[in-house]
Amino acid sequence: MAEEVKRQRDEQEDNSDGIGISSIIPGWFSEISPMWPGEAHSLKVEKILFQEKSEYQNVMVFQSSSYGKVLVLDGVIQLTERDECAYQEMITHLPLCSIPDPKKVLVIGGGDGGVLREVSRHSSVEKIDICEIDKMVVDVSKQFFPDVAVGFDDPRVSLHIGDGVAFLKEVPEGTYDAVIVDSSDPVGPAQELFEKPFFELVAKALRPGGVVSTQAESIWLHMDIIEGIVANCSQIFKGSVNYAWTTVPTYPSGMIGFMVCSTEGPPVDFKHPVNPIDEIEFQKSERPMKFYNSEIHTASFCLPTFAQRKLGSKAH
Amino acid sequence: MAEEVKRQRDEQEDNSDGIGISSIIPGWFSEISPMWPGEAHSLKVEKILFQEKSEYQNVMVFQSSSYGKVLVLDGVIQLTERDECAYQEMITHLPLCSIPDPKKVLVIGGGDGGVLREVSRHSSVEKIDICEIDKMVVDVSKQFFPDVAVGFDDPRVSLHIGDGVAFLKEVPEGTYDAVIVDSSDPVGPAQELFEKPFFELVAKALRPGGVVSTQAESIWLHMDIIEGIVANCSQIFKGSVNYAWTTVPTYPSGMIGFMVCSTEGPPVDFKHPVNPIDEIEFQKSERPMKFYNSEIHTASFCLPTFAQRKLGSKAH
Repeated sequence: MAEEVKRQRDEQEDNSDGIGISSIIPGWFSEISPMWPGEAHSLKVEKILFQEKSEYQNVMVFQSSSYGKVLVLDGVIQLTERDECAYQEMITHLPLCSIPDPKKVLVIGGGDGGVLREVSRHSSVEKIDICEIDKMVVDVSKQFFPDVAVGFDDPRVSLHIGDGVAFLKEVPEGTYDAVIVDSSDPVGPAQELFEKPFFELVAKALRPGGVVSTQAESIWLHMDIIEGIVANCSQIFKGSVNYAWTTVPTYPSGMIGFMVCSTEGPPVDFKHPVNPIDEIEFQKSERPMKFYNSEIHTASFCLPTFAQRKLGSKAH
Repeated sequence: MAEEVKRQRDEQEDNSDGIGISSIIPGWFSEISPMWPGEAHSLKVEKILFQEKSEYQNVMVFQSSSYGKVLVLDGVIQLTERDECAYQEMITHLPLCSIPDPKKVLVIGGGDGGVLREVSRHSSVEKIDICEIDKMVVDVSKQFFPDVAVGFDDPRVSLHIGDGVAFLKEVPEGTYDAVIVDSSDPVGPAQELFEKPFFELVAKALRPGGVVSTQAESIWLHMDIIEGIVANCSQIFKGSVNYAWTTVPTYPSGMIGFMVCSTEGPPVDFKHPVNPIDEIEFQKSERPMKFYNSEIHTASFCLPTFAQRKLGSKAH
């Protein structure tokens, strides 16, 4: 399917106005993609703040009229200031609140720094590695999204610019307590991050009973992709394999899912977090969390019946 | 606020091409409204199937390229064949699965018949009244959405065409076990259905410990409206007052919420359904449910932190 999508995407690009803004609604950014044919979410643009082609993708930042600043990669919204909390908090705390005292964490992708910001809330963490392929994403986030890129300021963070797969190949076995894969869609630079060899490397990099969460698309739009990811993960992660989801208004279908898995070892019951983030710590925080809490953690694993029927037998 | 929204909406209509399809994307329907300024969800139109002005509103049906047929009232998507299950099943079963043996049910609005279809799954129900103001909605649903309008075929259903408020005024006190208010947004014909006198009439029509669910907008977009509804309901429904939500891709922000309340009387714990729909009955059904299950029932009451902070102290 990826090839077909790529071909359609190339065609799509020919219809743009050459500055990366779709021309079908003048003055608005429309997110049109063969990944979600026949529908488009549009945001009114106040001002384009940044527009450049990196080595890997088109990078754009614009000021929207109602969602704050927006980061767009290859025509797809990655985050808006108004709703980024949902994605960043959920992809991070679902794994980290499910194991006691996470110490070493690896982030693959996530160059905007938002996941780092969330990992930093965990006082048990001693070391945070991040491997992002596209330095331009990091630089742009630091320039335009200071409340997101603030994650890079944590002295526990080491930034590695490079390919996530290559990075993982060099990681000694059993290094990390948690790996968080904050990728774009499985078309373009992130494609490898949805494939089996990548998950095998992640499993190897984790300690026994270590945890991983990865961006895993929407049950309304991409059940075929999700079934593939679940099938791959079920073969590789011998602890548990779960699918969770959250609402994110500016993502297609208004939601996004996560694969949340653990390796063989001390069992991890993701649905009942053992490491809640201290409520007092929130209140002390300069940037209290906006979205995540222990209740919504547990609730996020409950699936609509149509998704249960497809995924229920495959997850474990 | 409603007046301002109405004024802006009138201006908006002047910009349409006169057939109710926004002119800014040729061949696409764009849902643009001052209720969600600066953003628009668009669906590609294969064919317009119906387009008429009723006594109350503009009614349109079109065949979309990826969400099946779509019902639009006054420019706002009411349902699509692809995702209507989420809304209809949740607004219906959240109240009906929370009380033992519901017998008499009133639906206000819901002229498409989808809520009726869901109420019909409950074998304890003896009588289903529906009061819809706009007969054209009923007729159009029967013509274009047979899998939704099938709800009208149940012999327990009595259809009343008229104003919900007037209907409720004639209802003897304590008549119903459950009232379901399936309304459009609080601008246009449904405005009254979000106001205190309406809720007072609903409470009066319910037996002690009776339950109501009403469409209650999105926490991402309309927290101000929701806070108002919660405040009103807290004064009127002396049993319990709760806010729940579900994902619906084609509604603004990709989600919608429900106020789910009970009157004074036998206590109702909405978060722990006492009347699960028999799984065997699903399997026997010609139209098994697609979305609702007991797990997602309980999960739907879990709110993100930003919404908890606003609503937590007001609900009870």
